Amino acid sequence: MARVSQEHLDARRRQILDGAARLFARNGFHATSMQDVLKEVDLSAGAVYRYFSGKDELIAAIAREVLGEVRTAFEDVARQSPPPPPDVLVGEVLSRVLGIWESLSVDAEPVLPRLIMQVWAETVRHEELAVVLAQGYEAVEQGWVRVVEAYQDAGLMRSDIPAEDAARTMIGAVQGFIAQQALFGTTPVEMLQNGLRGLMSMGGAEPAA
Amino acid sequence: MARVSQEHLDARRRQILDGAARLFARNGFHATSMQDVLKEVDLSAGAVYRYFSGKDELIAAIAREVLGEVRTAFEDVARQSPPPPPDVLVGEVLSRVLGIWESLSVDAEPVLPRLIMQVWAETVRHEELAVVLAQGYEAVEQGWVRVVEAYQDAGLMRSDIPAEDAARTMIGAVQGFIAQQALFGTTPVEMLQNGLRGLMSMGGAEPAA
Repeated sequence: MARVSQEHLDARRRQILDGAARLFARNGFHATSMQDVLKEVDLSAGAVYRYFSGKDELIAAIAREVLGEVRTAFEDVARQSPPPPPDVLVGEVLSRVLGIWESLSVDAEPVLPRLIMQVWAETVRHEELAVVLAQGYEAVEQGWVRVVEAYQDAGLMRSDIPAEDAARTMIGAVQGFIAQQALFGTTPVEMLQNGLRGLMSMGGAEPAA
Repeated sequence: MARVSQEHLDARRRQILDGAARLFARNGFHATSMQDVLKEVDLSAGAVYRYFSGKDELIAAIAREVLGEVRTAFEDVARQSPPPPPDVLVGEVLSRVLGIWESLSVDAEPVLPRLIMQVWAETVRHEELAVVLAQGYEAVEQGWVRVVEAYQDAGLMRSDIPAEDAARTMIGAVQGFIAQQALFGTTPVEMLQNGLRGLMSMGGAEPAA
């Protein structure tokens, strides 16, 4: 029996994930069947089930991949010392993450934001997915906490704010931006960057001790 | 035939919506059937279908109600002149909105954030719901734009930031906070308020003309 190259295996896996991502983003996770996935990627059941046991595994794999991309993008950008201000950092991370899946679109909208809505909704009933998300979120939060501490050490942010709270708020602003893209259509990342700059300009000095 | 009082009709409608909200938050929208809803609210099919034709109508009614509450809470809080700063305003609106449905919980977690995840995911395939959401969002955004303009008029925010961008970013921070509650468990609204205060302290003056 001929051995199949790793390259071929990876390409197949990629093909299946991309097809599933398009369908989940277009019709939602629940209205998509494994039959739909086979048809979309034009592969036999045997070929697909060799990689994924079913829809639950597909969506968990997609979530893992997206979170991995967010984490790598974030780590690359945050490596600078001192880290760039939130508007710059968020802009670079988001552009990179949205860019990676840009070639996949549904109704001329990128799939990623709509796909993330499906992942979030599925966590209520899909325990493995909830664990994937919680771990991915924790890693991203730890990265942001270090960035916030660097801001505070450099005197760029008032030091009496718990770093975790600021980290969560910045991640939340990104999550909210993604929700808006999914629900109301694509807008430039610059809008979020402008908004952050507006907030940052509002002041609010540390209360005198 | 005895006339049924409006009060009775409203109470029934409330009972059905609360039951459906609990189920959607616990098991997700798709894993919930109308049979489950009938059982949860302990009413006959005839009694329930008198109010709602099915699940799609139930989730649209829930979305309308939540958005109505967000809008009223926001309008009440933003009425002050000049409006309170973002951390105060967001805190008051969120506390009020999360408070209204507080009595409904699933696994000791409030239903509202998890319910909102279901609503967001459903918009990809449910056109009426997408329209409800888009209209509700537009109303909330218009309110925030007025608040941002008031900040700018009072010299509290740099004036070269498009008001829409700042408005969207603040709404996004709230949406992200709600997603975090749904995905990773309940945390105090104070964390978001602290985070906003941290961001606001970072400065970033208007570039000199």
